[in-house]
Amino acid sequence: MIVLFTDFGSDGPYTGQVQARLYQQAPGVAVINLFSDLVPYDIQAAACLLPAYSAGFPPATVFLCVVDPGVGGSRPGVVVKADGCWYVGPNEGLFALLVRRAGRVECWQLPDPVGVSSSFHGRDVFAPAAALLATGAMVDAKAVSAVCLDQPDWPDDLFRVCYIDRFGNAITGVRAAMLDTSQLLSVNGHRLKSAQTFSGVAPGDAFWYENSNGLVEFAVNRGRADQVLGIDVGTVISL
Amino acid sequence: MIVLFTDFGSDGPYTGQVQARLYQQAPGVAVINLFSDLVPYDIQAAACLLPAYSAGFPPATVFLCVVDPGVGGSRPGVVVKADGCWYVGPNEGLFALLVRRAGRVECWQLPDPVGVSSSFHGRDVFAPAAALLATGAMVDAKAVSAVCLDQPDWPDDLFRVCYIDRFGNAITGVRAAMLDTSQLLSVNGHRLKSAQTFSGVAPGDAFWYENSNGLVEFAVNRGRADQVLGIDVGTVISL
Amino acid sequence: MIVLFTDFGSDGPYTGQVQARLYQQAPGVAVINLFSDLVPYDIQAAACLLPAYSAGFPPATVFLCVVDPGVGGSRPGVVVKADGCWYVGPNEGLFALLVRRAGRVECWQLPDPVGVSSSFHGRDVFAPAAALLATGAMVDAKAVSAVCLDQPDWPDDLFRVCYIDRFGNAITGVRAAMLDTSQLLSVNGHRLKSAQTFSGVAPGDAFWYENSNGLVEFAVNRGRADQVLGIDVGTVISL
Repeated sequence: MIVLFTDFGSDGPYTGQVQARLYQQAPGVAVINLFSDLVPYDIQAAACLLPAYSAGFPPATVFLCVVDPGVGGSRPGVVVKADGCWYVGPNEGLFALLVRRAGRVECWQLPDPVGVSSSFHGRDVFAPAAALLATGAMVDAKAVSAVCLDQPDWPDDLFRVCYIDRFGNAITGVRAAMLDTSQLLSVNGHRLKSAQTFSGVAPGDAFWYENSNGLVEFAVNRGRADQVLGIDVGTVISL
Repeated sequence: MIVLFTDFGSDGPYTGQVQARLYQQAPGVAVINLFSDLVPYDIQAAACLLPAYSAGFPPATVFLCVVDPGVGGSRPGVVVKADGCWYVGPNEGLFALLVRRAGRVECWQLPDPVGVSSSFHGRDVFAPAAALLATGAMVDAKAVSAVCLDQPDWPDDLFRVCYIDRFGNAITGVRAAMLDTSQLLSVNGHRLKSAQTFSGVAPGDAFWYENSNGLVEFAVNRGRADQVLGIDVGTVISL
Repeated sequence: MIVLFTDFGSDGPYTGQVQARLYQQAPGVAVINLFSDLVPYDIQAAACLLPAYSAGFPPATVFLCVVDPGVGGSRPGVVVKADGCWYVGPNEGLFALLVRRAGRVECWQLPDPVGVSSSFHGRDVFAPAAALLATGAMVDAKAVSAVCLDQPDWPDDLFRVCYIDRFGNAITGVRAAMLDTSQLLSVNGHRLKSAQTFSGVAPGDAFWYENSNGLVEFAVNRGRADQVLGIDVGTVISL
């Protein structure tokens, strides 16, 4: 199974071009579009979401991960094997938290691309590599130490909003297991209690809860937390 | 074939997580994303769209249906078999009109979920059930009478806008077969005639017509009905 | 492989209905959603994008192409075979540039549809034809001369914005191979130089470049060209 974790959008044309390339080079392999609306340029947010949303997939799943403001520049592409799953993408910090938390990590650096576009490595570099890995082959890449990965000095938990979902819920970069459910969280002047789920509070009330992938999320029962709380991607939260 | 009829959005991450679960538990079964942008919380609108848009699918199609403001609360999950197709989702009224119109109906109540998320039963409860049904197996569920289904006192035809499509067309909850094409319909101060299709009126003109799934729809030839008429989901219409 | 090139949107319900029809009539054939957000009614823009974005697909790929303001009127449906690939859709000009540039072209006219919707030929007429072609069968259609195709008097290169992508990049209808990279391009009062890729200019700077499908595209390094330059689909550009 190949899982797409990108900022490409699902309407066109980038996700479709990647899927076409994957289909041609790995026919019969299922392709799942997990995220296609990661926030462009916000690598740190994506780096927080990746370990949370890639958890639970079966061994040998291949994650094609692209939030890639440096495309066409000198940043190399990498292949990471972490706890049995493969991750392919640009070396710009996206894998930093994944690798930090993984039990077993191996890394490879992809060769400098030749004869491909300078603006769409998702299609021309990473998709071919992902297709090879998904079919059980190895890519032409140089084994390197995990210290070669771009590992910015980012905290383990990011106290800000990383993603607003279709319902207006605000997903943060904080693992809920790091907090006690009795703790209040502050965001944009609001102090919020936790609840187990939406129906645990009155309609219209805001709260925080552990979302279905283990992250702290702000929500409003039958409403939009982004509007009710006046928050957006990047809004800082605090204890 | 498994058909998704949800408010999850196609960009991420919910539809992808459901598709991954379906793929793992029912590999080889096609998954079609019919609606992923149903209006959140508007169960009545979705209940009107469901029989119209699920018509014509082959027997044994499994519809995974989720508009689920009560997730995590006490509402049970249900499996409905109506005229040969399966429907899986929360028991909050979504199946009311489908069942009312079906010739033959059977129902099962899913057991209370244990050890799963309290906010994403689409992935953790309904997808596994849909996968089982799609592979020809039966789910672990208690046969119940159809009267156990949440059946609000909703009219057979809903005289309001239920969905705005990408073109700005306004799909209502009224079956066109209930009207005569000579009837005028009123919406937000406009009185509109019917036409058979877009090119039946002048560019810029608004009209109503029987859409390709049998519902009354407001449209504008080469324009957006939502903007031209000033209407949105919820806007009331009348004869 | 069947490739969708439409204005249907990926969220619902049109792309899903087409995919369901394709799956039923051509099970096992991969369906790729290349574009589902082409600009409604803007056939000329889509006609410029089609040859650029259909290039590179393997022989016998079937493109289902729908930007169809005339649906339900008298415009016929056509099948075009151009340089080994199939194209199915309405005869409203969408194939004009593709055919003009192709080395070898054959055309067929689909019979007038009977007993189908008058507003959704993508599902009821073109999808069944595409499914047949994808399975190696021929459609029931009359061979006609390519001069039967609607061929508006459009320039080979369209000096305006044809599509804004998710990042705010503005794709034009101009083939980059027609320009020299030393040329400046004017758009909305801005005179812009070319660069090879995003990282070739400073963050926040606007430029034009040859995008990954050979078209001239306006972009801003780590920013949105549509907002920075104040441009939208339709904005004219000039040398």
